Amino acid sequence: MKDPRQQALAYVQQHEEDFLQALAELIAIPSISTDPEHKDDVRRAAEWLADRLHGLGATQVALFDEGVHPLVYGELRAERDDAPTVLVYGHYDVQPAEPLAPWKTPPFQLTREGDMLYARGVADMKGQLMAALAAVEAVRAAGQPVHFKFLFEGEEEIGSPGVARVLEAHREAFQAAFCLNPDAGMHDRDLPSITYALRGLAYFELRVYGPAHDVHSGLYGGAIHNPAQALAELIAGMHDQNGRVTLPGFYDPVRPLSEEERRALAQVPFDEEAFLAQAGAPALWGEPEYSVYERTTARPTLEVNGLLSGFTGEGSKTIIPARAMAKLSMRLVADQTPETAAQSLRRYLEQHAPPTVRWELIEMVGAPPAYVDIHAPQVQALAQALQAVWQREPLYVRGGGTIPIVAELQRIGVPSVLTGFALPGANAHGPNENQHLPTWLKGIRALVHFFYNL
Amino acid sequence: MKDPRQQALAYVQQHEEDFLQALAELIAIPSISTDPEHKDDVRRAAEWLADRLHGLGATQVALFDEGVHPLVYGELRAERDDAPTVLVYGHYDVQPAEPLAPWKTPPFQLTREGDMLYARGVADMKGQLMAALAAVEAVRAAGQPVHFKFLFEGEEEIGSPGVARVLEAHREAFQAAFCLNPDAGMHDRDLPSITYALRGLAYFELRVYGPAHDVHSGLYGGAIHNPAQALAELIAGMHDQNGRVTLPGFYDPVRPLSEEERRALAQVPFDEEAFLAQAGAPALWGEPEYSVYERTTARPTLEVNGLLSGFTGEGSKTIIPARAMAKLSMRLVADQTPETAAQSLRRYLEQHAPPTVRWELIEMVGAPPAYVDIHAPQVQALAQALQAVWQREPLYVRGGGTIPIVAELQRIGVPSVLTGFALPGANAHGPNENQHLPTWLKGIRALVHFFYNL
Repeated sequence: MKDPRQQALAYVQQHEEDFLQALAELIAIPSISTDPEHKDDVRRAAEWLADRLHGLGATQVALFDEGVHPLVYGELRAERDDAPTVLVYGHYDVQPAEPLAPWKTPPFQLTREGDMLYARGVADMKGQLMAALAAVEAVRAAGQPVHFKFLFEGEEEIGSPGVARVLEAHREAFQAAFCLNPDAGMHDRDLPSITYALRGLAYFELRVYGPAHDVHSGLYGGAIHNPAQALAELIAGMHDQNGRVTLPGFYDPVRPLSEEERRALAQVPFDEEAFLAQAGAPALWGEPEYSVYERTTARPTLEVNGLLSGFTGEGSKTIIPARAMAKLSMRLVADQTPETAAQSLRRYLEQHAPPTVRWELIEMVGAPPAYVDIHAPQVQALAQALQAVWQREPLYVRGGGTIPIVAELQRIGVPSVLTGFALPGANAHGPNENQHLPTWLKGIRALVHFFYNL
Repeated sequence: MKDPRQQALAYVQQHEEDFLQALAELIAIPSISTDPEHKDDVRRAAEWLADRLHGLGATQVALFDEGVHPLVYGELRAERDDAPTVLVYGHYDVQPAEPLAPWKTPPFQLTREGDMLYARGVADMKGQLMAALAAVEAVRAAGQPVHFKFLFEGEEEIGSPGVARVLEAHREAFQAAFCLNPDAGMHDRDLPSITYALRGLAYFELRVYGPAHDVHSGLYGGAIHNPAQALAELIAGMHDQNGRVTLPGFYDPVRPLSEEERRALAQVPFDEEAFLAQAGAPALWGEPEYSVYERTTARPTLEVNGLLSGFTGEGSKTIIPARAMAKLSMRLVADQTPETAAQSLRRYLEQHAPPTVRWELIEMVGAPPAYVDIHAPQVQALAQALQAVWQREPLYVRGGGTIPIVAELQRIGVPSVLTGFALPGANAHGPNENQHLPTWLKGIRALVHFFYNL
């Protein structure tokens, strides 16, 4: 009897047209989560996926309705009970196709032109989702080495407002060794990549209070501490001159970047000049001992998102304002949490806010950072799988932002490994969204390898 | 022949009822400059004053119309050509009487009850204006020792938006040794006072620019200097920890406070606790080596009047804002000017603004500080006059705010000496505005002495 891995790879080759047919069916449902008029289409796509899971033999298939749009759940048990459980993530919702004029093909009709597939969602991420399901189908047919659970959300494009509620309500169902999230892209068709870390978030509103009401600067100026000035003084003290955050204990939970990890990050193509040009800022800034890529992905930061105090209209008004407000946020890296971040900010304020003003710190949204060690078995299994197909080591990538589903899974103890097969220029969210078909097929094969490597 | 001074004082005593009658006539005209419906009444009051000046024998009487409401001008020459010229200032416009319910007497009808006079404007400042005109009439009758010029404005209560234009158009007409401005009050009926200095103003908008547009803090955080943070850093550096302004050269033009002047200022009743309670701030603040009264009147300051940057609504938005703005103003003391103040701010920014952001400084309104040395002849003449009537040395007072007409006269080279005979509790701008009649009559006598002391 043939090796199951080889059988599964053969299955992929034999069923390419079937996979494309299935993808075309899903793409034909305009599951635009951002548009209330398409609410039923979103549900139709969820039902289509639930049927598909049933067809694969999945159990526990359900639509969870605690969120804004249905979350599709299902399980597919391996023969061996002690096999690890992989939670396969996907989102089946898409952005609107508008503006329609620039599209060269009908957006909700999967169109093949040479090596390219065109359609809304073919890259982001119905294509990636169906690649994962294709690999699952292939290993299912050849001998399933791991348990699968499925989490297909329908509200990623609106910021996943309901996933926290769903995950909380079905916490046990989502337990898994890790989550495979194929929603990350590639830097080039020859550069497979693994995203092993994302930054978390802590968001605050800091309010500083001075006089009981706005007072005349001619009568009070010089003898009352101006809360806008006090706020500026507090904010200015939050960084040193090298761009390092000075809050007490802020960096204490941060895992140091190993030399090995830094070497790996240095492999990731990153054009600092293009980055600066895209920002349109006069110069780069930040911790000089880290590369710009490291600063924006592997280092925690503190940002002022907004400032408001006193008179801000046209012309002049001579007051000492009664209050001043700053929106502050932090990007967090492992093993910081929104809680450690809030503690360090609060301690800073307790130590530095002068007795001449009052202050209040409001803790708003927070999300833990996501992190998997690049030596973790699932990362190495994926790395070997990508290498088997692309004949080169993948890039190890960190992301600077926060992905809600990844943060929420991290919160319930499920780390995520992110990969994906969409290329730069895939035009996710734009017209003529596309997917390079050979890369998509390579992706399916890589995921087959991955499941057998675990 | 009797001494003219004594003759004039006798004239005052004989004409008390006439003076009150004249005051009643002016008060009966509701010259409410804040209310466009009373525009004609404002002009009627100006015409009444012009007639009054004609009646005193004034020449060059005119209504100057370059401003919002007429400015009444006139001259009254002394016999001796080489006599000094005193510019007598007054404003004949008043605040509205509303709310009417709390008034115990008709607001535009001068009402006497015992020692008290009640009416809108009786304190602020038709009463003070007519006291000055009464003293002028008395010395005119007895032998006029100085030339008089008159400047009666009708837009003080709306912030004198047009006086700069009028003064510029008739610059020569307003030349004088100094201006007598009886619009300042007294601290107590036994405490005559001279206001010899007011603070000036320089107002700016400082704009700091970072990225070309708001950018995602997850993608750019840590590698782009946040303009809101850069603005906060710039503002924080503008004061040292003792509340002293750090702008280069900022204090260079400031006349040091002499020990004598500080002793005089220490005589001015000033309740620091009440000041703090009125502000409602948690604590006093500012240069520790100066009293609160000195900090708010005799020391220059720099204030943040407003801050605006990025996202300031409800909730959270994770951006690095493209720009940040601060409204900044300075209260100036002699011999600072809006120009020296702007230079010092610009030099600070040139020295301290980092190359990671761009900045722009917009110079807005400015007014020079007003200052007369307390040893100046006109101040000493007024001090002796007040002493002759009250049998005690007057207080030497500084004001922390800026009075437009005083600043504008200072700009064309005419210093002002401020005094006045309205008491605390006069309810200027409020209901039942009042004037203590014996103090008003003392004021007229003091001004008679003043003119003969010059």
